[in-house]
Amino acid sequence: MAKLWGTRFSKGLDPSVLKFTSSIHFDKKLAIYDIDGSMAHAAMLGKKGIIPKKDAKRLVSGLKALRKGFQKGTVKLDESKHEDIHSAVTEMLAKKIGKVAKERLHTARSRNDQVGLDMKMYCKDKIDGLVDCVTYLQKSLLNFAGKNINVIIPAYTHLQHAQCILMSHQIIAYVEMLERDKERLLGCKKRTDEMPLGSCALRGTSLNIDREAVARALGFSRITQNSIDAISDRDFIMELLAALMIMGIHLSRFAEDMILWSTKEFSFVEIDDSLATGSSMMPNKKNPDVLELIRGLSGNIYANLSSVTVMMKGLPLSYNRDLQLDKVPLFSSVETLQEVLPLTAKLVKTLKVNKANIKKKIGEDEFLFATDIAEFLVKKGYSYRKAHDITGRIIKYCIKGNKKISDIPQKRLKSFSDVLNVKVIKGIVDPERSVASVKSKGGTNPTMVKSAIKRWRRKLGNA
Amino acid sequence: MAKLWGTRFSKGLDPSVLKFTSSIHFDKKLAIYDIDGSMAHAAMLGKKGIIPKKDAKRLVSGLKALRKGFQKGTVKLDESKHEDIHSAVTEMLAKKIGKVAKERLHTARSRNDQVGLDMKMYCKDKIDGLVDCVTYLQKSLLNFAGKNINVIIPAYTHLQHAQCILMSHQIIAYVEMLERDKERLLGCKKRTDEMPLGSCALRGTSLNIDREAVARALGFSRITQNSIDAISDRDFIMELLAALMIMGIHLSRFAEDMILWSTKEFSFVEIDDSLATGSSMMPNKKNPDVLELIRGLSGNIYANLSSVTVMMKGLPLSYNRDLQLDKVPLFSSVETLQEVLPLTAKLVKTLKVNKANIKKKIGEDEFLFATDIAEFLVKKGYSYRKAHDITGRIIKYCIKGNKKISDIPQKRLKSFSDVLNVKVIKGIVDPERSVASVKSKGGTNPTMVKSAIKRWRRKLGNA
Amino acid sequence: MAKLWGTRFSKGLDPSVLKFTSSIHFDKKLAIYDIDGSMAHAAMLGKKGIIPKKDAKRLVSGLKALRKGFQKGTVKLDESKHEDIHSAVTEMLAKKIGKVAKERLHTARSRNDQVGLDMKMYCKDKIDGLVDCVTYLQKSLLNFAGKNINVIIPAYTHLQHAQCILMSHQIIAYVEMLERDKERLLGCKKRTDEMPLGSCALRGTSLNIDREAVARALGFSRITQNSIDAISDRDFIMELLAALMIMGIHLSRFAEDMILWSTKEFSFVEIDDSLATGSSMMPNKKNPDVLELIRGLSGNIYANLSSVTVMMKGLPLSYNRDLQLDKVPLFSSVETLQEVLPLTAKLVKTLKVNKANIKKKIGEDEFLFATDIAEFLVKKGYSYRKAHDITGRIIKYCIKGNKKISDIPQKRLKSFSDVLNVKVIKGIVDPERSVASVKSKGGTNPTMVKSAIKRWRRKLGNA
Amino acid sequence: MAKLWGTRFSKGLDPSVLKFTSSIHFDKKLAIYDIDGSMAHAAMLGKKGIIPKKDAKRLVSGLKALRKGFQKGTVKLDESKHEDIHSAVTEMLAKKIGKVAKERLHTARSRNDQVGLDMKMYCKDKIDGLVDCVTYLQKSLLNFAGKNINVIIPAYTHLQHAQCILMSHQIIAYVEMLERDKERLLGCKKRTDEMPLGSCALRGTSLNIDREAVARALGFSRITQNSIDAISDRDFIMELLAALMIMGIHLSRFAEDMILWSTKEFSFVEIDDSLATGSSMMPNKKNPDVLELIRGLSGNIYANLSSVTVMMKGLPLSYNRDLQLDKVPLFSSVETLQEVLPLTAKLVKTLKVNKANIKKKIGEDEFLFATDIAEFLVKKGYSYRKAHDITGRIIKYCIKGNKKISDIPQKRLKSFSDVLNVKVIKGIVDPERSVASVKSKGGTNPTMVKSAIKRWRRKLGNA
Repeated sequence: MAKLWGTRFSKGLDPSVLKFTSSIHFDKKLAIYDIDGSMAHAAMLGKKGIIPKKDAKRLVSGLKALRKGFQKGTVKLDESKHEDIHSAVTEMLAKKIGKVAKERLHTARSRNDQVGLDMKMYCKDKIDGLVDCVTYLQKSLLNFAGKNINVIIPAYTHLQHAQCILMSHQIIAYVEMLERDKERLLGCKKRTDEMPLGSCALRGTSLNIDREAVARALGFSRITQNSIDAISDRDFIMELLAALMIMGIHLSRFAEDMILWSTKEFSFVEIDDSLATGSSMMPNKKNPDVLELIRGLSGNIYANLSSVTVMMKGLPLSYNRDLQLDKVPLFSSVETLQEVLPLTAKLVKTLKVNKANIKKKIGEDEFLFATDIAEFLVKKGYSYRKAHDITGRIIKYCIKGNKKISDIPQKRLKSFSDVLNVKVIKGIVDPERSVASVKSKGGTNPTMVKSAIKRWRRKLGNA
Repeated sequence: MAKLWGTRFSKGLDPSVLKFTSSIHFDKKLAIYDIDGSMAHAAMLGKKGIIPKKDAKRLVSGLKALRKGFQKGTVKLDESKHEDIHSAVTEMLAKKIGKVAKERLHTARSRNDQVGLDMKMYCKDKIDGLVDCVTYLQKSLLNFAGKNINVIIPAYTHLQHAQCILMSHQIIAYVEMLERDKERLLGCKKRTDEMPLGSCALRGTSLNIDREAVARALGFSRITQNSIDAISDRDFIMELLAALMIMGIHLSRFAEDMILWSTKEFSFVEIDDSLATGSSMMPNKKNPDVLELIRGLSGNIYANLSSVTVMMKGLPLSYNRDLQLDKVPLFSSVETLQEVLPLTAKLVKTLKVNKANIKKKIGEDEFLFATDIAEFLVKKGYSYRKAHDITGRIIKYCIKGNKKISDIPQKRLKSFSDVLNVKVIKGIVDPERSVASVKSKGGTNPTMVKSAIKRWRRKLGNA
Repeated sequence: MAKLWGTRFSKGLDPSVLKFTSSIHFDKKLAIYDIDGSMAHAAMLGKKGIIPKKDAKRLVSGLKALRKGFQKGTVKLDESKHEDIHSAVTEMLAKKIGKVAKERLHTARSRNDQVGLDMKMYCKDKIDGLVDCVTYLQKSLLNFAGKNINVIIPAYTHLQHAQCILMSHQIIAYVEMLERDKERLLGCKKRTDEMPLGSCALRGTSLNIDREAVARALGFSRITQNSIDAISDRDFIMELLAALMIMGIHLSRFAEDMILWSTKEFSFVEIDDSLATGSSMMPNKKNPDVLELIRGLSGNIYANLSSVTVMMKGLPLSYNRDLQLDKVPLFSSVETLQEVLPLTAKLVKTLKVNKANIKKKIGEDEFLFATDIAEFLVKKGYSYRKAHDITGRIIKYCIKGNKKISDIPQKRLKSFSDVLNVKVIKGIVDPERSVASVKSKGGTNPTMVKSAIKRWRRKLGNA
Repeated sequence: MAKLWGTRFSKGLDPSVLKFTSSIHFDKKLAIYDIDGSMAHAAMLGKKGIIPKKDAKRLVSGLKALRKGFQKGTVKLDESKHEDIHSAVTEMLAKKIGKVAKERLHTARSRNDQVGLDMKMYCKDKIDGLVDCVTYLQKSLLNFAGKNINVIIPAYTHLQHAQCILMSHQIIAYVEMLERDKERLLGCKKRTDEMPLGSCALRGTSLNIDREAVARALGFSRITQNSIDAISDRDFIMELLAALMIMGIHLSRFAEDMILWSTKEFSFVEIDDSLATGSSMMPNKKNPDVLELIRGLSGNIYANLSSVTVMMKGLPLSYNRDLQLDKVPLFSSVETLQEVLPLTAKLVKTLKVNKANIKKKIGEDEFLFATDIAEFLVKKGYSYRKAHDITGRIIKYCIKGNKKISDIPQKRLKSFSDVLNVKVIKGIVDPERSVASVKSKGGTNPTMVKSAIKRWRRKLGNA
């Protein structure tokens, strides 16, 4: 294994140290970015006359070929032969085009700024991919919401029955959350979009490089403004991991909702057989493993942020080798969500709604209309306090007598309030009417929910 | 203690439960926001005819008086008397203006959307304050950088001497980091700027409220679009805590740098006596406690994010009481940084630079110029590989012979490369020349660093 | 505010720094431990002739009086007057007995070893208290289990119905978890039981102190063996926080189970009205807030460990001021669990079991007996694979035809296996028989569960 | 890929779900434990007549052969063919011995208790290995301490010079820490030493198994006592991860100390060339990458605990698929420390101490003897307060006049205290005398430190 730095040392590196410090088994994922960055760098070096033009040309065309080889799979990286992806690219290039690779490519460049560049390119790229995955999931949720627009379920606070809502209204809550996730990703991308190359080891170089040209060639909006910051900064990784962590929390909540909804007890939805698993011992089982793993993976996604944050804590400037430990956690969160988001969409697409059961459930709990009664009373002139109180007494009466609200006799109703009677109560105790009565913007009224779906579809494009 | 909800229950609340669930000892910090939100709500209820106009008027003027009382300190909140800040405001208002407070104020509102509103107002407000604190610290750093523009120090990678840089260049790295911190705060503020009130318990209300009017009155740009999301969402808190966590990491790194710089061994800077502490046992000690606490507090700031994230994990929609636990961690991070940022600025302002010692230190380590030699060789036509190699051999020769580079005799120098000689080496081994030689943008060249200071001052305003 | 160290400084401490670095507002909780430690120290100093015997006597009796005053509440600590609890005790003592307090008490002692001592005394003490709280909760669970020994519920894996079990069997699972929690606490206590005083600032002292005597006086088993370790070590805090964190996770799982069991959908249990809360908007609500907060607090308890761990990361030896930040998180976890454990016990004690509803639920899901059928088949000579397969086909048949297992006609049953018939199935589809059939140790058989209760009661003592 | 549970399903599993839920790519590390557990299980099933004796025999001998094949490397596991290690073992066994493997092995066993067993066997085994690694590192530290017993360094608090100590004294502080780490590991092992098999899916089995026999065969001390706890419990993993986390913190502190000691500024030690790395850009660099990675890995080790803890939070009983996510973090921490511990030992063994430089450094800072002076004064009858004060004034005088303590003229000395004179001061300002003067147990006195080394060697065995 050829090293880029051995001369001043009187001994070779201990093999266990080489194994311990080498990063090739994970930073190989940066290969394409490393090649692209090297191409832009070599071209610039040639243009500025820092290396001979013909050498630059050779470097660039060699790198192009190497890139193609990587993409086609004809070039294979041998992990046992290289210390890191930067050395690997140089050495593989040298095999192709000769010693000019090792001699010239590393001019006015250090691995410190090079890895910063590769990581920023990776992040920008992956953010775009993740944003697409999120949009895809949002569309699946919207389709599900559209398809099941008439389904009325009990809404929960404290996991206790609260009021009637459209199932679609709850589903769209997740569309909102995911949109904020995307905004966070894009905010992070904006801050990541600064080209660090040319910061070199830490202070720049006395060679006459053109950093803006490299930035342009690689599609960056601007260059970093302080070389020490540029090679010490891992904000973009912590910020991305934090954004993904919040997304992981959202998905854990969605998973929890769906796990609950598919219990025997709730039975609101049924997961498709193709997405559920069984038990090696209990022949009856159909388990929502996919959802459980999505919920549980929020722990891992959270921990990836922890890992980088704790590593960064208290590090003096500028570059320290600890920074190498940013990669495994970052790749883990990115790849986990790249897998989880489409899988969640697939699950949503095939989710069956148990409409009959839901209808039955709603029918069994008239307390869901307690707020409807209270608001009816307010419209009749009661203060909310008084209305809440009257309704509370009705509920207590029903619990004690084990009665439904619609079973309260006319006379007893009147005793709670003059404006109440059997006909009024029958009118109120009706899920369709209940949801339709909502007037406030952002509420569960079917007209509003339908508009929300339309608005989202316009925003996100067709499914 | 009057409760807003007791009617349906057959027993009073156990006192230990009341103590356990009550939030008044921390959510009292939301008092002003709660009052402002209530004022806007009451005014709207009156305008829309949901409550009598005269009641609305009375509520609003009562709330105004209460607000004034709070600000002047003439109104004191008795924690033992209230369950939470929302009840407290209602009850204190009732004392002022009578039962209309309890009767009417809670119309078309739930504590679920009310606490969401209060927390968003708090966050928006505190973000503004924190941004100002950060700017103030940035200016202190810039002043320090400007004042010490001629100081050249060894830069470190791996905490080993690397190359000569301007001390100011390293200081400005922190200005860059802090700027990203501000951007993250402002991005978060943008996403926080959605008015949740009117989402009520979870699904909106059948009363004819005007949410946009409330939003306008309270300075929000827009209203939340989904009521279930609105009362379940704590993204804005997690995002703010994450942004503050990264800021905490930055400050821990700055503290570490300053702790190192003020050791006996580095002796680059000396903390003012007014900001250092001593030992009860060792009469010689002068300790950088402030910096150590700043470094250590990054742990607490990180943990506050953990606390909310773990609490959120796997919560089903919509509101769950767990959400109440968002406050203590949020307040802790906000208040810690409100204290730490100005204190750091104060420390920077009074920091003394030990110029003589630094000069001596630079003079003792000519290996700091190794990269200068290598780049000189590149300009003379060597490939970087070759140049690195030659310089590496010079270093090895010096280590072995315990020599300085400038002590290598002419003949020996020539043996490394024809282009080297004593005069050339003398030219290179010079800190001023070394930093001035840097050409790449964002580098440590004094001209560039001075421009950076100017650019920042233009951006941030005068100190 | 008198400081123990000011002489060498040319300026007084900046007030904002004093506020920032002072710890009195939280370390005041260590007052009693600090006094006891000081008493033992002073007595030893006198006995060894390091300070005059009469001074020692005066210190000890003054400290005793101070202790009494603290306990009776006649002595009040004025936070604005002291930097930390160590100075506070010295200064309050000086008020009582004159300058000998300030002159002599701090001989052969530093705040570095003193705070280590106080914290270890605190931890040992609180561990004992927490162990008692855990035992109390275990007993409440056992009483509940005993009282409801006949209740058979569906057990869940993946939150899906699995098999019939005794509710008590699941409840005792928590008794097992809590027992491990106690063992962890006691293991931690053993490691905490090392007396650090006499390590002084970091290297011990040239004064002829007797550390073992101090250890004996304070009830420690042994002294610490390395002075640098003694003042740098916070293992005992991290270990205690980790043990409490695992306990927090256990409680979060218990809370989740109870939250689920008290939903409308499960309706296995009902929380007593005195332990539940309502809604300010929805008159129908009865919410398990206590359980939700217990679940959510696991986040805070976890974060307290994070806080200390991140603070400790990468700290060089020996004492650093960062270590002061161990207190708030430690106190938070200890106090939270001191409150949560008895409250959980109270909740368990008043929990009502909805036996009729549970019975109905079990009756509705005969798939719960699928494993019983499979094991029946194994006893009849089938391999488990085959038995699982046959039962799986029965289940599929029932799902398709929307049938109960006990409704399958004789002929159809036979077609699955010769050994099956209507009578056999009726025998199997019986919850009492099902749980009684379990033979393996640690299983849900009522005889075993009763023994388990007895065994636990013997171990834990009477309730 | 054959599944153990497919019958009741009407569709096959979606391939993306299979990939997502399968664990073979990480749980393959449990192969040997799974085989051993299966062997004990099969033997017991045969002995109890639950499966035919000849089948049991065949299973056991087949498993033995498979085990051998695994160990020799002649059997290779094809990850693409299996869902998890449990299925893999069954299927590979079936290939060897025919269908009896699939038919019989899974009798009275579920993957829920099987994975619990495998994980406990893994943990017990790895704890033993880690304890050995820790002992090995302790011995290396002791050898280093013994070899450098005469080296006196400045000790630091707040990273400021405090007092003179033996370098060995500080090194032994780490031996103490590591010993506590071992105790925590062994405490965890004790709690892990409970055999869960036979808990089956969750409630045990109606088949007449003998759990104690399996426990004995596998070297467990006892069986788990509650089947639901047994399959839901991941305490042993959280506890192990917490113990490793604290160890990671210790190593991060050691790494930090060594990184500081090997800076140009401290120059106390020099890392062997075979364990250090260079720079691709700066020919002068020799970097302590190994130490930096050890420091940084504390973040990862911490995060592994986070990952499992967050995953566990709020999970209802009993088994949930989330639990599968315990493996990657556990394996990561175990393997990281298996690598880090010996590497740290290697680094310690080859560490060179720069004695001359250290001596020079000590000589330059006479303030290190301030406490010695103060304690001298106490022995002469001063109170510590007074002694501290006098010494503080001496220090202040020296700082102001830029003098060494030993340069203070006789007359000036007397003015601080009658008992001081030039000869006395010369006696005090002597590193050897200073460390030898320490009398308190656990202090830095060379005699004590030598005893400590002897005591540790007796305890740990020869190196």
